[in-house]
Amino acid sequence: MRLEQSHRTERFGAVRIHELQRVIQLDSGDARGAVDDGVVSHDAIRAIEREMVIVIPCMNETRRVIEGVLSGIPQDCLIVLVSNSSRHPVDRYEIEAQTVEQFCRLADRPAVTVHQRDPGLAAAFKSAGMPELIGDDGLVRSGKGEAMLVGMAVAALTGRRYLGYIDADNYVPGAVHEYVKVYAAGLHLADNPYAMVRISWHSKPKLRDGRLFFSRRGRSSEITNGFLNRLIAEYSGFGTEVIATGNAGEHALSLDLGLRLRLAGGFAVEPFEYVDLFEQFGGVLDTAAQPEVMASSVPVLQIETRNPHFHDNKGEEHVQGMRLQALNVLYHSPVTLPAVRAAIVEFMVAQGALAPGAEPPRERIYPPVGSLELDLLRDQLDTEAETLCKIGGHSTVEGSRVWTRRA
Amino acid sequence: MRLEQSHRTERFGAVRIHELQRVIQLDSGDARGAVDDGVVSHDAIRAIEREMVIVIPCMNETRRVIEGVLSGIPQDCLIVLVSNSSRHPVDRYEIEAQTVEQFCRLADRPAVTVHQRDPGLAAAFKSAGMPELIGDDGLVRSGKGEAMLVGMAVAALTGRRYLGYIDADNYVPGAVHEYVKVYAAGLHLADNPYAMVRISWHSKPKLRDGRLFFSRRGRSSEITNGFLNRLIAEYSGFGTEVIATGNAGEHALSLDLGLRLRLAGGFAVEPFEYVDLFEQFGGVLDTAAQPEVMASSVPVLQIETRNPHFHDNKGEEHVQGMRLQALNVLYHSPVTLPAVRAAIVEFMVAQGALAPGAEPPRERIYPPVGSLELDLLRDQLDTEAETLCKIGGHSTVEGSRVWTRRA
Ligand SMILES: Nc1nc2c(ncn2[C@@H]2O[C@H](COP(=O)(O)OP(=O)(O)OP(=O)(O)O)[C@@H](O)[C@H]2O)c(=O)[nH]1
Ligand SMILES: Nc1nc2c(ncn2[C@@H]2O[C@H](COP(=O)(O)OP(=O)(O)OP(=O)(O)O)[C@@H](O)[C@H]2O)c(=O)[nH]1
Repeated sequence: MRLEQSHRTERFGAVRIHELQRVIQLDSGDARGAVDDGVVSHDAIRAIEREMVIVIPCMNETRRVIEGVLSGIPQDCLIVLVSNSSRHPVDRYEIEAQTVEQFCRLADRPAVTVHQRDPGLAAAFKSAGMPELIGDDGLVRSGKGEAMLVGMAVAALTGRRYLGYIDADNYVPGAVHEYVKVYAAGLHLADNPYAMVRISWHSKPKLRDGRLFFSRRGRSSEITNGFLNRLIAEYSGFGTEVIATGNAGEHALSLDLGLRLRLAGGFAVEPFEYVDLFEQFGGVLDTAAQPEVMASSVPVLQIETRNPHFHDNKGEEHVQGMRLQALNVLYHSPVTLPAVRAAIVEFMVAQGALAPGAEPPRERIYPPVGSLELDLLRDQLDTEAETLCKIGGHSTVEGSRVWTRRA
Repeated sequence: MRLEQSHRTERFGAVRIHELQRVIQLDSGDARGAVDDGVVSHDAIRAIEREMVIVIPCMNETRRVIEGVLSGIPQDCLIVLVSNSSRHPVDRYEIEAQTVEQFCRLADRPAVTVHQRDPGLAAAFKSAGMPELIGDDGLVRSGKGEAMLVGMAVAALTGRRYLGYIDADNYVPGAVHEYVKVYAAGLHLADNPYAMVRISWHSKPKLRDGRLFFSRRGRSSEITNGFLNRLIAEYSGFGTEVIATGNAGEHALSLDLGLRLRLAGGFAVEPFEYVDLFEQFGGVLDTAAQPEVMASSVPVLQIETRNPHFHDNKGEEHVQGMRLQALNVLYHSPVTLPAVRAAIVEFMVAQGALAPGAEPPRERIYPPVGSLELDLLRDQLDTEAETLCKIGGHSTVEGSRVWTRRA
């Protein structure tokens, strides 16, 4: 893979946000290139993939589309599907688990699947130390952020070092493939134990008057990015457009970083990652300093892919909801300065999304996955979570080999 | 890459048509697998790519789309763009050549571009022994088949062993990437000096009532495949559906085979490849036997890709035109038995595409590229073809290194 070089970064304490880099070429052969020319060799990519878990949050997507997504994930990555699909009248989770199982048999590779609303999963998270994740019905709450958190915890149990997220509703297996290659290339280039790679799609096809248009940015992204950039500019005194991936559903990170992050619930999860990086590593709050991270810096690479992002369109209402969740977390963050908070409220009121004088609601913020007792979680999952499938691939002896040996 | 195994083949003389195989997984890591399990290793794929020329026929496509296509072609393949784009009032060819040049500079790789209607190109083909290619205006005729023929001749000059075709109007770089990987994997599995790989897309997104549908087969493909299968069935006495790629624009072949094939003009080119295989290697005509080919057999692999084929829609009229050209060549082939010819005429009349009692028109069929005097062609191109650009990539010394040294 060959990426455009990026030399400009914006710093926010220990966080270093790299300006958007384009993918120049999907496959740069065995080219090895000099340091810093943006070429990442096949071997370097493979080395990261072998340490990478791909978490797929999935809710009522069709079998065909899921199958396509699976086919795009490079062999060496471990697949973890976290489903919140309906189980009545048809058990869609059963179909999904079968789809994964069949694919893994053909492709001879392992995977894990689990249902978000499995009572055993809730019990495991409760005993492992995260009762916050459990709703009034005694189950893990619904929401994409919650699914990502469950996936991260499962990833932590595998002993692998990196985690990438891929949505289940992508129509283009080649785009999925590119995302994973970009994760690996970016994590390689970041060359840092605490690193994140976020994807900006080249374009997102939309239907307009019966024709296809390739629009450059999602509507909700523009708003989220705008306010995140203002948040930074208020500190630096310089306007910036560096953040282009505030809503990036597709992103990857080292688990060393991931286990320290607090994830937000629902669709607040992606923008809140930026906010939490600023809160924890921005150096402007005197909360819980993490000296080893502060000393090392936290690179955030933003990479524009070549493929269009061509996926299920959940409609206008959904986009509006996502946008608001992003603004809610921004509004309530202690790193957000008063001028930005005022601008957020003004925007929301102008949109008719907030009554004048009211305060934006709070989103749920969970404790870091690293605070869980992972040994306990593993044991409880193995004994209690009935929907947990550990798939072995036809040549590995048992699915249980998916978990790493405990220390 | 991991392909479904295919054990069933249909024979027609020396031609062995393999039933459609699916791509199971785009990237099978370093898995090497046993013989015959459909896994083709990274190294095996790369070895073919290093010997492969990718010819891109291009006519008035946008810069953005061309750039995306280029970005999907693996580094080791040599790019050859054959353009028939308009040159007035805007010189679109100049823009295309610049696009290729810029891409190659960034990606550090070589390429060749040429314009189909360059008088120097026509002169070169004339002196090298193919006056048939030249129209009344003294230039190489327009048409996709003609562009493919020019590309094949250029490929022959590079000394590489394989040739793959990729349309310039593909919106999904990841699909282009998959096509080339499929070519390489298929040519590796075919393991034969005379081999062809033809692609069937997983699906082709269409707009219907303002929504996207992923339809499985193109309309024109169904008709073409149907008659090709009947052609075979008339000989074997058994109905068959083996041919699924009669119109495949995306296909690759060894140049050992390619230089022996006669190509048809326009959109007849792809279905006529099957027809010419049957004519030359089917063993039913006693024309020009090629004992070395007949002794070795000619495998045709058909592979269903994972990615949707998402491209510019040229409209209904275009499809209708393509379908008729396919049927014209089938009708006029000496291998087509009378019952099939009658069925073709009946179909065309029923469609209102042929007056009752009339005969389908003939399409142009050119002599094999292997009959050209290649040394002469090379010299003439270098001296006469003003639009010919040999791009070197920033680290190769000169573009002229694209041609192989002469024997
Ligand atoms: N496990 C789980 N997955 C979810 C949940 N909500 C959404 N998802 C999945 O998360 C992915 C992204 O969700 P979408 O609702 O499509 O959100 P989006 O694609 O970012 O939004 P749009 O771009 O506007 O369509 C999809 O694969 C969904 O199936 C959830 O509560 N639990
Ligand atoms: N050089 C050259 N390229 C051509 C010519 N005609 C078509 N092409 C290119 O060949 C490719 C395929 O042509 P299309 O007309 O899109 O045909 P198609 O994609 O098979 O047909 P549809 O699937 O119905 O759209 C595109 O990249 C065209 O730009 C030609 O006369 N000369």
